[in-house]
Amino acid sequence: MNGDKFIMGLDKDSPWSREEFEQRLRAKEKYYHINHPFQVMMNRGELEKPAIQGWVANRFYYQTSIPVKDAAIMANCRDREVRRHWIKRISDHDGGEGEDGGIEAWLQLGEAVGLERDELLSEQHVLPGVRFPIDAYYNFARSATWQEAACSSLTELFAPKIHQKRLDNWPEVYPWIDVTGYTYFRKRLSEARRDVEHGLQITLDYFQTRSEQERALGILQFKLDILWTMLDAMWMAYIENKPPFYCVND
Amino acid sequence: MNGDKFIMGLDKDSPWSREEFEQRLRAKEKYYHINHPFQVMMNRGELEKPAIQGWVANRFYYQTSIPVKDAAIMANCRDREVRRHWIKRISDHDGGEGEDGGIEAWLQLGEAVGLERDELLSEQHVLPGVRFPIDAYYNFARSATWQEAACSSLTELFAPKIHQKRLDNWPEVYPWIDVTGYTYFRKRLSEARRDVEHGLQITLDYFQTRSEQERALGILQFKLDILWTMLDAMWMAYIENKPPFYCVND
Repeated sequence: MNGDKFIMGLDKDSPWSREEFEQRLRAKEKYYHINHPFQVMMNRGELEKPAIQGWVANRFYYQTSIPVKDAAIMANCRDREVRRHWIKRISDHDGGEGEDGGIEAWLQLGEAVGLERDELLSEQHVLPGVRFPIDAYYNFARSATWQEAACSSLTELFAPKIHQKRLDNWPEVYPWIDVTGYTYFRKRLSEARRDVEHGLQITLDYFQTRSEQERALGILQFKLDILWTMLDAMWMAYIENKPPFYCVND
Repeated sequence: MNGDKFIMGLDKDSPWSREEFEQRLRAKEKYYHINHPFQVMMNRGELEKPAIQGWVANRFYYQTSIPVKDAAIMANCRDREVRRHWIKRISDHDGGEGEDGGIEAWLQLGEAVGLERDELLSEQHVLPGVRFPIDAYYNFARSATWQEAACSSLTELFAPKIHQKRLDNWPEVYPWIDVTGYTYFRKRLSEARRDVEHGLQITLDYFQTRSEQERALGILQFKLDILWTMLDAMWMAYIENKPPFYCVND
């Protein structure tokens, strides 16, 4: 018994190889919000129009938070090479010369599900239970090192699958959604793959000791929790029909 | 019509009287978490033991956040008189010479519902959807002026009623809870009344113009949203039995 403990103690202190560390990061996929009951219902085509609209309007707050979150990361980063990479994430969402960007694509998704642009831009449908986790993500990016913040972006490892599933299923299960609305999901398929490669290399380089590597797993879990709890709030509001009184009475 | 608009315009710009402003703050009571479905079930005696335990363990993170939140407010306040008042809030929860304090009282509530002290102290049961809104409250206190932060504490206006209801109903509807656990609720009856008087005077003094007064109502709503969404996460975990996979699988 004592011998076992000693070996376990040793194991605990030695860092994982780069490959094993990456594998452990990837193994976090099971906690991705693709498995949240709201997302499962959404993908099966079981959501009513108001629930789809609620999801699109709430998720818009996440979309508009991404570029300020990425600016906060750049504000903490003295490495010019990293910033030259990272700045693309901001333009991907904000757009630029001759390029609409992800926020505009999301507004078009909003129109495709029957929401006015202003309904999204005004944030009138954003639930407090969606706002709090997203703000937590932003605050983390602002106070963490840029490498830690890069690590928190690694949920992108799991994003292409969720976008692809939407592209595959939604036209069939939600025939009332205008297919021109799907540009965002298509656009992110390639962007997410490019971004995550960069974020992954930063993470594998930066977190060296075993306890640092474990911290990286904790940071990734924190980000998974953010995506997950956003859907909890939407479940309460649009599946249970129990939104905060404030959102219906005011 | 135009005349009406003009009058409405005037009304909108002129500040409410001190009395009307206070009345509008108090009218926010309808959004207090006493009306949340989880709280309603809890008060009716409809919760099973694991849900009561979950509530006690999750709410502990709120309890332990209060003194650091109050220290953050004091850290922004150069007014010695205000600090001499505010410091009592910290001691109320942390305790001191010959006085256990609210955190210790909550640990005793934990024991009364069958939770080990360590289960609370380790935060092992704290759901991410509870942590995010509480952290939002703490972050607000850190970045807002101390008067704005004082305003956010005004949910205490509505607290004595919720504590009194627990003292009245719980011994009957939850006979399995050891009554020695109710010290916290009893203790807060008087403390909340004293604190809120101070917070209310600060708020009525500080928010002067109509748009400032409206901002105060928004700040109070923000705090109401925090208390409300904490219960959304507990509803998902303990009523719907849909906690984050992370909390059950890891």
